[in-house]
Amino acid sequence: MTATATARRTVRVDLGDRSYDILIGPGLISAAGREIASRLKGRKIAVITDAHVAPLYLGGFMGALQAEGIDAVSLVLPAGEKTKSFEHLISVCDSVLAARIERNDAVVALGGGVIGDLTGFAAGIVRRGSRFIQVPTSLLAQVDSSVGGKTGINSPHGKNLIGVFHQPDLVLADTDVLDTLSPREFRAGYAEVAKYGLIDKPDFFAWLEKSWRDVFAGGEARIEAIATSCQAKADVVAADERENGQRALLNLGHTFGHALEAATEYDSARLVHGEGVSIGMVLAHQFSARMNLASPDDARRVEAHLGEVGLPTKMDQIPGGLPPAEKLMDAIAQDKKVKAGKLTFILTRGIGQSFVADDVPQSEVIAFLKEKLPK
Amino acid sequence: MTATATARRTVRVDLGDRSYDILIGPGLISAAGREIASRLKGRKIAVITDAHVAPLYLGGFMGALQAEGIDAVSLVLPAGEKTKSFEHLISVCDSVLAARIERNDAVVALGGGVIGDLTGFAAGIVRRGSRFIQVPTSLLAQVDSSVGGKTGINSPHGKNLIGVFHQPDLVLADTDVLDTLSPREFRAGYAEVAKYGLIDKPDFFAWLEKSWRDVFAGGEARIEAIATSCQAKADVVAADERENGQRALLNLGHTFGHALEAATEYDSARLVHGEGVSIGMVLAHQFSARMNLASPDDARRVEAHLGEVGLPTKMDQIPGGLPPAEKLMDAIAQDKKVKAGKLTFILTRGIGQSFVADDVPQSEVIAFLKEKLPK
Repeated sequence: MTATATARRTVRVDLGDRSYDILIGPGLISAAGREIASRLKGRKIAVITDAHVAPLYLGGFMGALQAEGIDAVSLVLPAGEKTKSFEHLISVCDSVLAARIERNDAVVALGGGVIGDLTGFAAGIVRRGSRFIQVPTSLLAQVDSSVGGKTGINSPHGKNLIGVFHQPDLVLADTDVLDTLSPREFRAGYAEVAKYGLIDKPDFFAWLEKSWRDVFAGGEARIEAIATSCQAKADVVAADERENGQRALLNLGHTFGHALEAATEYDSARLVHGEGVSIGMVLAHQFSARMNLASPDDARRVEAHLGEVGLPTKMDQIPGGLPPAEKLMDAIAQDKKVKAGKLTFILTRGIGQSFVADDVPQSEVIAFLKEKLPK
Repeated sequence: MTATATARRTVRVDLGDRSYDILIGPGLISAAGREIASRLKGRKIAVITDAHVAPLYLGGFMGALQAEGIDAVSLVLPAGEKTKSFEHLISVCDSVLAARIERNDAVVALGGGVIGDLTGFAAGIVRRGSRFIQVPTSLLAQVDSSVGGKTGINSPHGKNLIGVFHQPDLVLADTDVLDTLSPREFRAGYAEVAKYGLIDKPDFFAWLEKSWRDVFAGGEARIEAIATSCQAKADVVAADERENGQRALLNLGHTFGHALEAATEYDSARLVHGEGVSIGMVLAHQFSARMNLASPDDARRVEAHLGEVGLPTKMDQIPGGLPPAEKLMDAIAQDKKVKAGKLTFILTRGIGQSFVADDVPQSEVIAFLKEKLPK
C-alpha cells in the first residue's frame, strides 16, 4: 500500500464483453479527447453536466474533444438530487436523440453522482442501450457511483427505484478536479473510501488511519486511495453484477444511512449521503457489538477514525433533530423487505469482516436505535 | 406441419438463466392463475391493460388470479399507439411501486403490442428489473411483440427509440381471444406469421398458402401457425438476443413498412403496422428481383398470397396518397444509418431465403420507389 512512481493508474472492471477501464490520475479532463478518440469508433458525443460543474470543466472538456475531431454537444441541467427525475431523464433522452447519437457514438456524464446516475440511465434506454462514458467530478462519484453500472432516478416512492444496470465503456477519474471540492464534500466521499476498508480490507483501513492526511492533501496517496477503492468495487461488481448476493456488502452503513437521509428529507444542509453513511457505518459496528458479533473496540476504532477526519459519527450531530426510533424503523423497512419481523442488514465481525445477515430481528434494531438517539 | 391432437403447445425461449416458456392454446386466460401461481414465488401482481381489452378480459383474468390467492391490482390505460409515451410509462411505474411489487412478484401486460411494449419497459426499469408476464391479446402480439424482450416507447424523434431489452418470465397466448379481433386486425397479425415463412421457412410458407383459411377459421391450424411463428422467433432471439447480427432478419419488410407508417403519420385508419409490413415484404421481394438477386416469380407468389388473404400489397392501396420517393427515402434513412450512400436492408434470394444486405445503394432504392409509387 505505498505510492508508486507513475501518477496515472488503470483499474479494469472484468465483465466479459462489457469489461472496461477506469483511468485515475491528474489531467484526465485535458486528455479526455485522446483517451476517448482512441477507444471510440464513432465521432459524436453528447455531454450531460450540471450548473455547478459546467462553469468549471465543461469548456475544457469540450475543447479536449474538439481537438481530436470529436463532434460534441452539451446539456447543462440544474445541480442537485432533484435532477434525478423523470422530467430531466426525458430532456436528456431528447437531447441525445436530437444530436443523432448512434451505436458507435457515446453519451458522457460530466459531474457527480446525480449526473452519472441520470445520464447512465438515459444512455441505457436510448436505442435500448448506447455507449456511455463517466467523467466523475466528485470523490464520491470517483470511488463509488461511477463504477459498477447502477443507474437510475428517484420516485416519490423512494430513491433510485427506477433505473437499469448499464455499464460504462470507460471511466475517466481526473483527480485534479477534487481540489475544487469543499472540505465537507471531500469528507463525504471519503466515507465511501473508508467503507472499502471496513468491508474486507483491514490493511487498507489501517493505512487510511495512518495516511488520511496525505489522502486529503492530494498527490500519490490520494490516487492510491481512489485506485484501491475502485479496485475493491470492481472486484465485487465482477463477482456479482446484479446484486444477487455479495454485492450487497457495498451497502455497509447504508441501511441506517438511508433512513437518516429520509428522516432529514434529503436536505443537504443537514446531512449529505456520505455523512449518513459515516454515521451508518459507526451504527452498524455498534449494533454488531451489541449483538455480540464484534468487539466494541472495533466500533470505537471506526468512530475514532471517521471523527478524526471530520465526519459526523453520531445521530446527535445532525442538526434539526430526528424522529423517534419507530419512525426510523419505518424508513428502514421501506427500503428492505421485512420477513416475519426479520431484516437483511450488513453486519460485521470486526474491521474488514463484514457479512450479509438476513435474520436481524426488527425489535433489536428498534431497541438499539432508542439507545442511540439523542434524548 | 400438421395439426396435433393436444390443443395446448409450449415453446421454450432458450436464454440461459433467463429462459422462459410461451404457452399457446385456448382457455389460457381462465387458467392464468394456476399457470402463474405454479411459477411465481411472490403472491402480488400488477396488471396493466387498456380500455379496449379491459371490458373483454380484465375481469376474467383478475378472477383467475384471485382464485389462486394472488393479490392483484390493475391499471387501465387509453388504447392506441400514443400510449407508448413517457407520460404513461411514468404512470405504470408509479402504480407498480404503489402496489409494492417486489422481486418475487410480477408485472403483467394484458393487451396487444402497445401494452406489451410499454409494460415490459416499465417492468425493466422498476427496481432495475422486475418480473414480467406477457398475456398478448392480438395475433400480432402473440407471434411477434410478446416474444424476444424488446420493450419501449416512442419519442418525437421516432418509434421505439427509448426502451430496454427485458425478457418476460412467461408468455400466455390464449388463442380464444383472437376470435374477438376484427378481420382487419387478424390479417395484420397474419402478415408477421407469413414473414417467418419468407425469412427462412419455405415449407411453412407453402403450408400457409394451402392452409391459411384454416388458420383464419381457428382451431388446430391456427395454434400450429402461432406455435411455428413463436418457435421461429424464439430461435432467432436465442441466437442473437441483442440484434448484433441475424436478429435483423426479423425486420424483413419493416424498412419499407416503417417508412409507409411514418408517411401516413401512424394513422391506423389509413395503415396499421401489419399492413405496412405486408406491402413492405412485397416491395422487398420486388426490389430483390430488380437487383437480380431473386426471381420475379417469387415476388409474384408473395404478392398473390398476401393479396388472397386480404392484405394490401401495393402502395396505391393506401388511402390518402403518399409523399414522393425522396421523402420516403428520408423516412428510411432516419431509421437506418446511411454510410456513404449505402443502406442496410433485408433482401432475399427467394421464398425463405432472406439475408442482411449492408451495401444497398440509396440511389437504387429511390429509383425503385419512383417506379412503384402511384403516379
